[in-house]
Amino acid sequence: MRSGQLHIISHICTMSKLWQKTTNVNELVENFTVGRDREFDQQMAAFDVLGSLAHTRMLQSIGLMDSADLELVQHELKAIYADIEKGGFTIEDGVEDVHSQVEMLLTQRIGDAGKKIHSGRSRNDQVLVDLKLFFRSELQHIVEETETLFRQLIELSEKHKDVLLPGYTHLQVAMPSSFGLWFGAYAESLADDLELVLAAYRITNKNPLGSAAGYGSSFPLNRTLTTQLLGFDSLNYNVVYAQMGRGKTERIIAQALSSIAATLAKMAMDQALYLSQNFAFVSYPDTLTTGSSIMPHKKNPDVWEIMRGKCNRLQALPTDVAMMTTNLPSGYHRELQLLKELLFPAFADLKHCLQMATFMLQNITVNTDILKDPKYAYLFSVEEVNRMVLNGTPFRDAYKQVGIAIEQGDFNPDKTVNHTHEGSIGNLGNEHITAAFDKLLTNFDFAKVDEAVKGLVE
Amino acid sequence: MRSGQLHIISHICTMSKLWQKTTNVNELVENFTVGRDREFDQQMAAFDVLGSLAHTRMLQSIGLMDSADLELVQHELKAIYADIEKGGFTIEDGVEDVHSQVEMLLTQRIGDAGKKIHSGRSRNDQVLVDLKLFFRSELQHIVEETETLFRQLIELSEKHKDVLLPGYTHLQVAMPSSFGLWFGAYAESLADDLELVLAAYRITNKNPLGSAAGYGSSFPLNRTLTTQLLGFDSLNYNVVYAQMGRGKTERIIAQALSSIAATLAKMAMDQALYLSQNFAFVSYPDTLTTGSSIMPHKKNPDVWEIMRGKCNRLQALPTDVAMMTTNLPSGYHRELQLLKELLFPAFADLKHCLQMATFMLQNITVNTDILKDPKYAYLFSVEEVNRMVLNGTPFRDAYKQVGIAIEQGDFNPDKTVNHTHEGSIGNLGNEHITAAFDKLLTNFDFAKVDEAVKGLVE
Amino acid sequence: MRSGQLHIISHICTMSKLWQKTTNVNELVENFTVGRDREFDQQMAAFDVLGSLAHTRMLQSIGLMDSADLELVQHELKAIYADIEKGGFTIEDGVEDVHSQVEMLLTQRIGDAGKKIHSGRSRNDQVLVDLKLFFRSELQHIVEETETLFRQLIELSEKHKDVLLPGYTHLQVAMPSSFGLWFGAYAESLADDLELVLAAYRITNKNPLGSAAGYGSSFPLNRTLTTQLLGFDSLNYNVVYAQMGRGKTERIIAQALSSIAATLAKMAMDQALYLSQNFAFVSYPDTLTTGSSIMPHKKNPDVWEIMRGKCNRLQALPTDVAMMTTNLPSGYHRELQLLKELLFPAFADLKHCLQMATFMLQNITVNTDILKDPKYAYLFSVEEVNRMVLNGTPFRDAYKQVGIAIEQGDFNPDKTVNHTHEGSIGNLGNEHITAAFDKLLTNFDFAKVDEAVKGLVE
Amino acid sequence: MRSGQLHIISHICTMSKLWQKTTNVNELVENFTVGRDREFDQQMAAFDVLGSLAHTRMLQSIGLMDSADLELVQHELKAIYADIEKGGFTIEDGVEDVHSQVEMLLTQRIGDAGKKIHSGRSRNDQVLVDLKLFFRSELQHIVEETETLFRQLIELSEKHKDVLLPGYTHLQVAMPSSFGLWFGAYAESLADDLELVLAAYRITNKNPLGSAAGYGSSFPLNRTLTTQLLGFDSLNYNVVYAQMGRGKTERIIAQALSSIAATLAKMAMDQALYLSQNFAFVSYPDTLTTGSSIMPHKKNPDVWEIMRGKCNRLQALPTDVAMMTTNLPSGYHRELQLLKELLFPAFADLKHCLQMATFMLQNITVNTDILKDPKYAYLFSVEEVNRMVLNGTPFRDAYKQVGIAIEQGDFNPDKTVNHTHEGSIGNLGNEHITAAFDKLLTNFDFAKVDEAVKGLVE
Repeated sequence: MRSGQLHIISHICTMSKLWQKTTNVNELVENFTVGRDREFDQQMAAFDVLGSLAHTRMLQSIGLMDSADLELVQHELKAIYADIEKGGFTIEDGVEDVHSQVEMLLTQRIGDAGKKIHSGRSRNDQVLVDLKLFFRSELQHIVEETETLFRQLIELSEKHKDVLLPGYTHLQVAMPSSFGLWFGAYAESLADDLELVLAAYRITNKNPLGSAAGYGSSFPLNRTLTTQLLGFDSLNYNVVYAQMGRGKTERIIAQALSSIAATLAKMAMDQALYLSQNFAFVSYPDTLTTGSSIMPHKKNPDVWEIMRGKCNRLQALPTDVAMMTTNLPSGYHRELQLLKELLFPAFADLKHCLQMATFMLQNITVNTDILKDPKYAYLFSVEEVNRMVLNGTPFRDAYKQVGIAIEQGDFNPDKTVNHTHEGSIGNLGNEHITAAFDKLLTNFDFAKVDEAVKGLVE
Repeated sequence: MRSGQLHIISHICTMSKLWQKTTNVNELVENFTVGRDREFDQQMAAFDVLGSLAHTRMLQSIGLMDSADLELVQHELKAIYADIEKGGFTIEDGVEDVHSQVEMLLTQRIGDAGKKIHSGRSRNDQVLVDLKLFFRSELQHIVEETETLFRQLIELSEKHKDVLLPGYTHLQVAMPSSFGLWFGAYAESLADDLELVLAAYRITNKNPLGSAAGYGSSFPLNRTLTTQLLGFDSLNYNVVYAQMGRGKTERIIAQALSSIAATLAKMAMDQALYLSQNFAFVSYPDTLTTGSSIMPHKKNPDVWEIMRGKCNRLQALPTDVAMMTTNLPSGYHRELQLLKELLFPAFADLKHCLQMATFMLQNITVNTDILKDPKYAYLFSVEEVNRMVLNGTPFRDAYKQVGIAIEQGDFNPDKTVNHTHEGSIGNLGNEHITAAFDKLLTNFDFAKVDEAVKGLVE
Repeated sequence: MRSGQLHIISHICTMSKLWQKTTNVNELVENFTVGRDREFDQQMAAFDVLGSLAHTRMLQSIGLMDSADLELVQHELKAIYADIEKGGFTIEDGVEDVHSQVEMLLTQRIGDAGKKIHSGRSRNDQVLVDLKLFFRSELQHIVEETETLFRQLIELSEKHKDVLLPGYTHLQVAMPSSFGLWFGAYAESLADDLELVLAAYRITNKNPLGSAAGYGSSFPLNRTLTTQLLGFDSLNYNVVYAQMGRGKTERIIAQALSSIAATLAKMAMDQALYLSQNFAFVSYPDTLTTGSSIMPHKKNPDVWEIMRGKCNRLQALPTDVAMMTTNLPSGYHRELQLLKELLFPAFADLKHCLQMATFMLQNITVNTDILKDPKYAYLFSVEEVNRMVLNGTPFRDAYKQVGIAIEQGDFNPDKTVNHTHEGSIGNLGNEHITAAFDKLLTNFDFAKVDEAVKGLVE
Repeated sequence: MRSGQLHIISHICTMSKLWQKTTNVNELVENFTVGRDREFDQQMAAFDVLGSLAHTRMLQSIGLMDSADLELVQHELKAIYADIEKGGFTIEDGVEDVHSQVEMLLTQRIGDAGKKIHSGRSRNDQVLVDLKLFFRSELQHIVEETETLFRQLIELSEKHKDVLLPGYTHLQVAMPSSFGLWFGAYAESLADDLELVLAAYRITNKNPLGSAAGYGSSFPLNRTLTTQLLGFDSLNYNVVYAQMGRGKTERIIAQALSSIAATLAKMAMDQALYLSQNFAFVSYPDTLTTGSSIMPHKKNPDVWEIMRGKCNRLQALPTDVAMMTTNLPSGYHRELQLLKELLFPAFADLKHCLQMATFMLQNITVNTDILKDPKYAYLFSVEEVNRMVLNGTPFRDAYKQVGIAIEQGDFNPDKTVNHTHEGSIGNLGNEHITAAFDKLLTNFDFAKVDEAVKGLVE
């Protein structure tokens, strides 16, 4: 391929403008269809540049960009990336989206070579890869915040492993439980949630770049190369599937987020309940609750309530996505753009909730005297029977004696518990839970991703 | 431990009755709370027996059941298991649930030893393990049916890889696509769905047995032993979490099923559209559609429509589960039982849909003449420009020439496509997609599970 | 029109068979597409006959059925209706649906005249009207059960109007409340729910008959006449809209049911909480709860829990419907049939829940000593300040005095409350709430419907 | 009551500050719990002032505010209201919410009298009434925009009543339809949607003011007076129910909005389909679609796609609300505040969609030649049989003749349709549909509300 030809091919980048009908799109239509898109594009800027860094290296490798242009383009893209990292990047008024803003900056600085970054790509294509890179990065943050909360919960479980509290079934006082069990249960719940995040991460971390408008193209692209450069695990091979992944990726990520959210919401419900005067199992410093000097008993758990609300909203997120994508035939549809409005704030909300949960738990005080309250005495009735049996009393006798004692008001149970099996009050198994969590973490190959990003921008 | 004591401990199995208040539960209450539970319990019978086979071996290992009783119990449980496999097991009228039915059969045959199978277990506990075993088995069936459909799709993709069809964006004729791409895209979609099924499987395949009422017990249970015997990957360690897993496991399974369902629903929508006279891309034998002799054109795609409906309903399943479990504080609540009504039919429906999708695709005929219709000529306008550019014509000239040809009605595009990159029309990458699918399959250790089950029942 | 012609026209009823392709539909297809439809059709049988009674009278009125045939047909249809009412009607094996079963019975008894009932109707049409009549009847039952529960709640509100209980905000003890307020609040909630049921009823109670396959027909039908005969308020005029109403009617009904369900679920949550030993505000006879003699404190609120679960599932029902109908273009689609599987059990479940709520409340005991517990003393701190102020103490002084008393542990509030404004503890306004409920009831013109039905079957 | 006392009572307005604990709420907590609340409060400002105008007049009527203070307060509140109307009102940095901002402005201008506007109210109370007034106003806008779209649809239905298009069942060409039917169907759908909006409006248009923190108060408030002054239809009588209405009102409004949204989404799907080259039933000016000069056939229906997406998201809104409120016991919970984030943008989105639908339809062109395409000939096969039968040919003969003609390729149907019954192609019934819509409109007593507002602010 002659260089003259290469020069010409590079103009394909301008096709989107050439193709544009001369009739202007009506302003009402423009406002309605663009919506909040520019706002979200801002968050994707760094990833858009990463995509272009990889794409142009690939273009050069297949002879569709010459080395001189590549050098120019790479240098300026890296400069823009650095600006974005420093917070110095904005999509200017009148510029349609992040792709156009980047192209405009490039062209201002290096002339026509800047336009060549779109050769062999469609906008659809570019959005797909930007979203994948953004989601991948956000999932990494979610994993990190989840890990922090997980370790906080394990720490509290160990710290308060000997403090008992009533265990409820049907909201009825049932069996002895402990703060060790309670905190630890939520830690283990997060470990299982991570399985879903891992599935979402794996589905996300595949390269859609090169699918063009969803049907591929006649350019001899090397998609394997961009896959490596961008640190993806693999490709979305089939180009029709690459496009079909839009909406699907969002739905599956939403499910993963909703799983962590469900764990947090349940914990928040417990917290609000246990803070009630009717339970009084835990408390927080005055600065972390709201109340009134004339109602000194009142310690409103606003943080846990807001968290419960935000997380329950996140539980509805997968339905929001599914309702918007259900029964759409295959191929791109414009409303897929609206999924950003659902997903982008969801990541921010969940991270915020994870951080606040950790923060609140760092300040929790547990009530060590709960079981002194006589209403919890019956917690030990089954324990007492079991104890007598294990000590040799025939079961029916033990049962009868305990029954009579209770009936006559003479039931004074031994309030120590001696549970020894795996996962019980006396044998929490936090080390196993932590080991399982840590093992799951190793499946997220963040280091490889970081290295790939470094390889592109440095 | 003396044998007398053991004898006594074995009576603990009867506690549920001894504990039962003498006042009978009101019949209205009984009907309302039991609901359709017996119907679903029937499906869990084999798994209930497996749980008891493992539990009793563990009881013997820790000295809570003597060897003679164990032998009796194991022998009869295996006989009951064989009956269930042969379809010869029913929960009799007046018997509350599957656990009681099994115990009753045992006691009829081997006397009091039969009652000992419940020692060291609560009913909560037993339901938890039954559900996990049932779900694990159903997930295996889902994976198997998904594999069959996957291979059918790949086969069709290869078979029709050279048959072109229009690719749409915005439901507008856009770019050339192919049946190879179309079938292959759904295959790759199933491969990604399998990631979610794997996450659900891993969360499911952990042992909750030993958690008692959700707070553990003072019996020196060996939960690691039952984990191995039942072929679980690991434990739900924390007993509070083991109980908390109810509802959560169902929600995550529902999400996994909904992901496959979303793939099927989208394919069904495409099928119904492509069968319309306005597309006429595919057809089926008359016996697989409905219609009328006086309307010979009419070939109603009832199977695809019913599939679309069933699968869209499955897409709402996670919300059904979430709505029922949201904001419940930790600990058992009775309505968790109702989740069976949601999950059990969902497995059956999805399996049926997977089978019917495979069956229909075995009988599909694709239209090989689609692109002859002049309305699809413009599909090739971008192709033509790209072709000229790759052949040396400057881009602007190529673009202008094609534009003029179209304007003057002289546009006669070369309708061959030469797409070569990974995942494109000429290079579908089905071998990579198949390899990825196969690799995912190896993560489901069904052989280990089958072996464990054999080890219990043979 | 000559009678010979009329005879011929009557044969149009057989078109559905004549049209049927001679090739049999594959059995797998048949099983998959019919599904549980026969089971639900059974419940629509009486309504199907009503539709035919009205339709044939209309056919005769426009000269498409002669008087002799009409007499025969009406006589036998009334006989079948009576059989259905007595429980003596079943869809026989091998008969496709309720319409075919009715036609078969008619033809067995009166020969060819029986086939004429389908003249000028399509099956689509017939299903639409059957569903509307069934839904209308079910909504009537829902209104009746709601009324019963409403009156029970008002009765309890009046009975216990002087029994105080703590009012909570943020689940924190906040202000004095009363059982009068608590019961009355749920009554008023049901009154508002009835607004939605009324909207659903009005949308339901419009006649779709005559829309044929959704595009009308060339027969000179008199749709106004069938509207009157069937007791509908009005027509679905536009025939395309009549078909479009399928799915939409179901969704709106689902929303109405979900609103009552939300009220019940919230009440059930309060009940489960207030039955907990940590609240102990209400209790029930032992026969209505479950528990254990060795745990005499345990009174599991199973009925309320199951109700909470069923009602929360109903809260997800509109999403189930929406997910199945979203993005379907206009016109009939086969999966609309599956909506029966969603709606039919929902009516049954909600009726059952309403009945059980009434039953439980008939047996509730309220705790009259709740506020003696010192933890509720602070309930009265605001009350005390307000009291002093209304008695002439400057606000700041009053506030200070109460604050000091609380601080020094000398706070001994007067635990009487003197709330007099509309809707407060001392002035519940139940008579206004009842009047509003009664006024809403008058909008449901059930008497007119009953009369229309009588006019058809007697 | 002496004036001195009144003066003192007026200080109760400052209780919220006096009660505030001296310990500052942690900044992290503040940020997390306040969230986007100030942004939404801005939209409620006018309604907050209306509430205060009514409340203070009531306070004066019961002797809790003297006439001089009332005059001062009313004068300044009206001035603030006028500023808000002119866009000159902002919640300043550091001011917590709209209530505080209004109070601050008042106090700056008229001193201590400004603080008295909160006497006898809690913040909960005030938010409840602000929300009701805001929702009422937004529902009015929705009704107005719906009316505009309705009339546009009826106009198009009449204009194109003679233009035929194919009617589909199962997406298969089935029967003749018309643009008259198609446009009219969506008009009638909106009429039914209005029933739900009316239910939501009635539930909204009830006065919660006076419920304090959800348990009423010892002040002798006259809630009937504020009900009249604010133009409410009635009260939320029971104060516990007034609070319980939060979340419930939002859910029911969401259901009403979702119903209109479902109509729009279905229309948008039809539009996107009918704009496809495979249908080509309708078209729009180039300025209202997007495309490319090299792909002149491409007219992407972006507006309809975005509308479909936005409206399908709105279809999920009730679930979002339900998920956030399910299983919350009675009484206020902090997360109820988050419902603003769901509802406020939903109103804006739906209004925008209604406007854009009207705008697009004003510019639609319908294809008058559709049925010339031979693939639609079979549309008339049933018509032809019916025509022959109505003309005297025996049915079986007619059926046979048409069948043979089709088989031999000689089927040349008369493509006129003669449908005359109510709601059919030749008798659309738009006058009845319009009458029904108009009658529904009269139930919304917007004039009364406008008059009440005028009475407060002028």
